[in-house]
Amino acid sequence: MATATASEHVTIPPFRPSRRILLGPGPSEVDPRVLAAMAMPLLGHLDPEFVALMDETKTLLRRVFRTENHLTMAISGTGSAGMEAVVVNLIEPGDRMLVCVNGVFGGRMVDVAQRAGAEVTAIERAYGEVFDPSEIENAIKKCAPKVVGIVHAETSTGAWQPVEEIAKIAHQHGAMIAIDTVTSLAGVPVEIDAWGIDAVYSGTQKCLSCPPGLSPVSFSAQAAEVIANRKTKVQSWYLDMQMIQRYWGSDRIYHHTAPISMNYAFREALAAVLEEGLEARFARHMLNHHALKAGVAALGLPYLTVEGHQLPQLNCVGIPEGIDDLTVRKRLLADWGIEIGGGLGPLKGKAWRIGLMGHGSRRDHVEIVLSALETCLADLGHPLKKGEAVANANVVYAKAE
Amino acid sequence: MATATASEHVTIPPFRPSRRILLGPGPSEVDPRVLAAMAMPLLGHLDPEFVALMDETKTLLRRVFRTENHLTMAISGTGSAGMEAVVVNLIEPGDRMLVCVNGVFGGRMVDVAQRAGAEVTAIERAYGEVFDPSEIENAIKKCAPKVVGIVHAETSTGAWQPVEEIAKIAHQHGAMIAIDTVTSLAGVPVEIDAWGIDAVYSGTQKCLSCPPGLSPVSFSAQAAEVIANRKTKVQSWYLDMQMIQRYWGSDRIYHHTAPISMNYAFREALAAVLEEGLEARFARHMLNHHALKAGVAALGLPYLTVEGHQLPQLNCVGIPEGIDDLTVRKRLLADWGIEIGGGLGPLKGKAWRIGLMGHGSRRDHVEIVLSALETCLADLGHPLKKGEAVANANVVYAKAE
Repeated sequence: MATATASEHVTIPPFRPSRRILLGPGPSEVDPRVLAAMAMPLLGHLDPEFVALMDETKTLLRRVFRTENHLTMAISGTGSAGMEAVVVNLIEPGDRMLVCVNGVFGGRMVDVAQRAGAEVTAIERAYGEVFDPSEIENAIKKCAPKVVGIVHAETSTGAWQPVEEIAKIAHQHGAMIAIDTVTSLAGVPVEIDAWGIDAVYSGTQKCLSCPPGLSPVSFSAQAAEVIANRKTKVQSWYLDMQMIQRYWGSDRIYHHTAPISMNYAFREALAAVLEEGLEARFARHMLNHHALKAGVAALGLPYLTVEGHQLPQLNCVGIPEGIDDLTVRKRLLADWGIEIGGGLGPLKGKAWRIGLMGHGSRRDHVEIVLSALETCLADLGHPLKKGEAVANANVVYAKAE
Repeated sequence: MATATASEHVTIPPFRPSRRILLGPGPSEVDPRVLAAMAMPLLGHLDPEFVALMDETKTLLRRVFRTENHLTMAISGTGSAGMEAVVVNLIEPGDRMLVCVNGVFGGRMVDVAQRAGAEVTAIERAYGEVFDPSEIENAIKKCAPKVVGIVHAETSTGAWQPVEEIAKIAHQHGAMIAIDTVTSLAGVPVEIDAWGIDAVYSGTQKCLSCPPGLSPVSFSAQAAEVIANRKTKVQSWYLDMQMIQRYWGSDRIYHHTAPISMNYAFREALAAVLEEGLEARFARHMLNHHALKAGVAALGLPYLTVEGHQLPQLNCVGIPEGIDDLTVRKRLLADWGIEIGGGLGPLKGKAWRIGLMGHGSRRDHVEIVLSALETCLADLGHPLKKGEAVANANVVYAKAE
């Protein structure tokens, strides 16, 4: 990797990533304007211009979350750090938490909550399914939780969980509701205030089309009060929202050194989302999803998520009998530079996850992934009618014009 | 901030940071080659090319830490996340930890350790002082800790703490030693293996001259074994080294989505450090420190760190009687674009922290900060001989040639 000459001079070859079309479960393709923001020279983390950027970011993020929540900002870690921040700030040792598990990320929330000392009740649904409000109400009645945790967009299965009704039920029973919007935010509607969500976290690398590294979070006034009135210190110093908000708020008390460049990129990504318009962005995601789905049907691949709850930005399709997962994914990467995701947990080797997220949700991506998949499957002897997948997608686009 | 026309088209003005000369306690000036790496298109976090980058990064980081430790990688958070990762992985509830506090970051370690359930004994030294091995030995004898935590380079005071002897003493008494090298790594010698350090964390935004956002960590084989044999789960899911190492190791089991762009930049920063050469880099930091110090003496400002233990990369100087801290720092920023740091804790309003870190440790920076400070102080009536500060610095440079 490194070569040393007699004069001890070392040179290390530059790293130059190959061109990729990122159609997996994230990171998604990043808008060039966001990449350009990453390369801007740094400001100090208490520089008046950086502080103004933080304030602007909070304003922009509130619009994307559709909330007036004061406690709205970015955690300096990826989406999983956001999950942990929500849990460890709301939960004190011995508190009861109900977690709804229908995929990897619900399962992760159980683990995080147990580590935070919560008495966790987990209710389960099979991968690809969603929860019914009534079963959650029954569980709430039994365990009387302080917090109900549920994943709005399950990245491991592409399941799109309605949460508005569940939030109402939680509140009727005196519980708070925390939702995971890592994959949903800026791809499908997320209505923090209209739905009455108490705590939410997301990630930057999905439909926001920003590099991974930050986790947008927001807490309702009630949740903020719960945090302010804790009897015990938050177990994580790094994720202690009361300390973080003194830096992000008007006090500007130093907590940790904010990731400056990531915050530049995040602001730019939020600006790009709002300039496109949330509704227009949701419609674009839905159109490309319909086109992909029409094409996938022609390939003879089933969706593994129940009908009516399929996320447009994450399409979880079954791998046909006799087709090897890795053979196809390796060829997609080698011959087209296309990344799609494999299955997680029980879906390992059985599912492909095709992401059409943010800047990456585009007609050219839909057509090239269908075309490339068709070639791979045909070469492996999978029966299909050549050209039909892209043709089906094009019918959807033609109708939309 | 945003304007909406009748057609609902929103435009958000671009963010363009002013040019800064970053001479505070970090972030430091980032090498343009590292900024360029930040803007490269993304790879997926399980892409073979990204996995190869992770492997190369571990190799480069081991050279910079001067260690063969297998468990050496970057945590996906800033330096404080690295501190928390070290503490929560080594400590189980009820374990005893001795923390040496001579500044803000030692104090932070006490807080982090208490939140992890440690029974903490803190020993203190005044800001600007360092610890003597004998007093640490006495404390170890009294509290018999599992871990001794100490800051190698105290960012709040510029104190440079020798740790080799302390590591020996800790081991003689059966304790592990964990050190904070956030500000020292790549600025002054850090010898993880030669000193026998069990756990170390650092930050990217100081002498590595990379944007903030990652925390390099390393654990000795013994520390790795302690972690592997824990009786309880690590309280932080996000910082659980056993899960993180399964992603950074050959298993490649998905844990969280790595901050791709930050890892590009980190690799590039490590390459830049090794291409310069560690010894050459240390010598450069020392030369610029001596030049700055000669100039600061001409300005009549005292160093607040004890002689013989002043970090070359962080110069903590006293603010003269009658001179207002913020007046000077605001003018430096407004008229020259220069950022220097203020004092933290008891040094608030009483100290300036002048950082000459990594790419920012340069002769032009030394001369301009001396010249600018001289102008500010002279205009506020502080007695000094004009031109003497830069002249003194130049004598040091001339002697070094």
